[in-house]
Order: sequence, then C-alpha cells, then structure tokens
Amino acid sequence: MTEIPLQKSVFQRNQAQADRIRRRFAQAGLAVVNLLSSPGAGKTSLLEQTAARLAGRRRIFVVEGDLETERDADRIRAAGLPARQIQTHGACHLDAESIEQALTDVDLNAYDLLLIENIGNLICPTGFDLGEDVRVVVASTTEGDDKPHKYPEAYHASDVCVLNKIDLLPYVPFRVEAFLAAARRANPGLVFFQTSCTTGEGIDAWCEYLCALHRSPA
Amino acid sequence: MTEIPLQKSVFQRNQAQADRIRRRFAQAGLAVVNLLSSPGAGKTSLLEQTAARLAGRRRIFVVEGDLETERDADRIRAAGLPARQIQTHGACHLDAESIEQALTDVDLNAYDLLLIENIGNLICPTGFDLGEDVRVVVASTTEGDDKPHKYPEAYHASDVCVLNKIDLLPYVPFRVEAFLAAARRANPGLVFFQTSCTTGEGIDAWCEYLCALHRSPA
Repeated sequence: MTEIPLQKSVFQRNQAQADRIRRRFAQAGLAVVNLLSSPGAGKTSLLEQTAARLAGRRRIFVVEGDLETERDADRIRAAGLPARQIQTHGACHLDAESIEQALTDVDLNAYDLLLIENIGNLICPTGFDLGEDVRVVVASTTEGDDKPHKYPEAYHASDVCVLNKIDLLPYVPFRVEAFLAAARRANPGLVFFQTSCTTGEGIDAWCEYLCALHRSPA
Repeated sequence: MTEIPLQKSVFQRNQAQADRIRRRFAQAGLAVVNLLSSPGAGKTSLLEQTAARLAGRRRIFVVEGDLETERDADRIRAAGLPARQIQTHGACHLDAESIEQALTDVDLNAYDLLLIENIGNLICPTGFDLGEDVRVVVASTTEGDDKPHKYPEAYHASDVCVLNKIDLLPYVPFRVEAFLAAARRANPGLVFFQTSCTTGEGIDAWCEYLCALHRSPA
C-alpha cells in the first residue's frame, strides 16, 4: 500500500465536495472567506473585531475549526455573531465535507458573508478547498519575518495576507518590508492588510474589503 | 479505498523505524530531543541560545526540519554547531525515516546530544516518534494561554514544555498560571521551563536540564 493514490483520492473527493458547496454558496449570494494561520496568530481576535465593526452592515455567519473545545465559537457568539464550532478531534485541517455538515441546518439565504476560521496550521489546510471565494493567510509580527520563505504554499494559495499584532513591532525583531517582500515572492498577487486587534489599527480597511466581497445571488 | 488502513500502516511503519534508530542512538550513547511547536514560537532561537551556553560542555548535533529553505541550519551553524537540514517540500512533519536518512553519514559516537527541530506544526508531528528520548513542546506567550486546551495532544505527547518569549509578557494578554494549569491538565507530568531568547532569562535552567540527559553508551 502506498500513500500517493490515497492522497489523490482524498484531494479529489474534497474538490468535488468543495465545488458542490461553492454552488450552494453562490445560489444563496453568500461570499465565503477561509482564514488560515499558525496557532495563535489572532484569527479569532480578528473575527471579534470584524464582528464589532460590521454589525448591522453585513449579515455574517462564522464557522470555527479547532481540534478541541467550543471556546472560539463562544468568543464569536459573545461578540454578537452566530457561530458553529467544528471540533476535528485531532484532524489537522477542515475539509469541504465538514463545512457542509456544519451548515446543514443553516439558512444560507439569511446571510451575506460566511467567515471560516480554519485549524491553526500553516501546512495541511492549504490543500483543502472549502468552497471559499477568498482565502486569507493571517501572519503575526511575533512569528518572525521569514515565514513566507518557510511556508510558501500558505502564501501562494491565498488571496489576502493580514499581518496582525503590529502593535508589538517595537518589541520584536520583525522587519515588515522583508516580510512583505517574502510574501510577494511566494505570491505577487497578494492583497495586504496590517492590523492590530489590540489598538484597532488597520481593522477598518480589512472590514471595508470584506464588505466589498458582497455578491448578488446567482 | 478508505483512510484508516493507510493511516495505520504509516504509523506502524514509522514506529518500526523509530525503534530501530532509537537502538542506534542508545548504542552511541546519544541523548535525543525532539522539539515541537507552532511556526515562530522560537525553537531555532532557543537552539541558538543553547549552542552558546553548552559549547565545550556537550558535543551537540542538530537536525533542522522545514518545508523549504536551509535558513535554520545556517543559523545553527552560525551559532557554532554542526547541523543538517531536512526540507520536506510540503510534508507537515518529520518521520523516523527522514531522521535516519539525514544522519546516514554522521558518526553518532562523536556526539552526546542530538537536537531535532521538527516542522512548525502543533498537530501532525505529535503522531510520529523520531526515536527521541525526550519530546519538548515549545509555546510562546504571544500565542495565547488557551493553546493547551486547543492542541492537547502536543502537550499530552511531550515530556517537557518550554514557555518562550516571556520578555513579551508585559505587552500581551497571556496569563501564565492559566497556561500552566491548562498544560498540566493535558499532561500532569510535564516539566516546565520559562525562557526568553531575547534577555536570556531561563536559558541556563533549560541547558542544565539538557546536560542532565547525558547517557552512557549501551
């Protein structure tokens, strides 16, 4: 038994499921964002800030992915948004099937924007389309500016890069220009935002971008 | 074709290889440490500090794992230690076979301590024994104090937890006691160190621990 045939069948099966739910999302006029990052880069904090800014402007539903606990969905609900938690119990990424199952009883027509927070992992989630329109890699200034060199696929496979925790720049050896150059080398088409969920800097620009994703029903 | 049989065969094959290289390590009197963390927690910086402290006290060899680039091995060599870089080109963890191959032409008898820096990933590496004596999970204060709740296997499967970047505690919402309690809940037997690779705090205690790992040839 070898690994390659199975790998292919897993990816092929996921792609078929992703294509199917993407059609459902399109029919409902739902814009879908898949957020990737390493653990602790600040995805949940970014969604909390987003919830506060976009309340009343967009109807948002959130899917939270974690290995264990309902903590992140609880944080999102406390921030005022409906959320569904997926617990993978050890699995290293979300897949299209898990998204479809999590949304089984959700009326997609009732929302404009679906934000999916993937498992904290810069590697495995990159291979799994979740039916999203936009993929976002969230980096943080405490991780080091070399990460796009070392995890290029996360940047190559994303549309947007949010550099978070910019309030900590005075305290960490992070060169923003070196980071941006490395990220652009992995993906020249990346759209960048620089944010701090502590000070709120840059959150408005990110939220305006999300608002512009609004899509009319197919 | 289903996923489960392959998963089992991958883990079983790795365990057989890990058992074999563990015997080689024991015959050479080599103590082996496998360091796990999320990307950017500071594993390489910790090894640089370790190199500086233990120069002349222990004969150390380092194996660096990354998806891409020779950067970390270059950093370790600049810090004065011999190092071998494994580039997995997308694979999310090191396995025993990759360690065996990386050490093919290394005289294990010439060293006391082998430090293996795993891929930056808190999930997938936990399932792969590398023939180590001690597994270390490196956390950082910028990742949030809830990580042991959300990634329990990384803590459960480790012997030691290094909490790094303690110099940033004044600037981040990280409760050390909550983190320690969560980590102990995942693994009551964890040995803890708290370090800063910027100020050097706590590095001596970590290095004394490594020195105590010295093992006589079998």
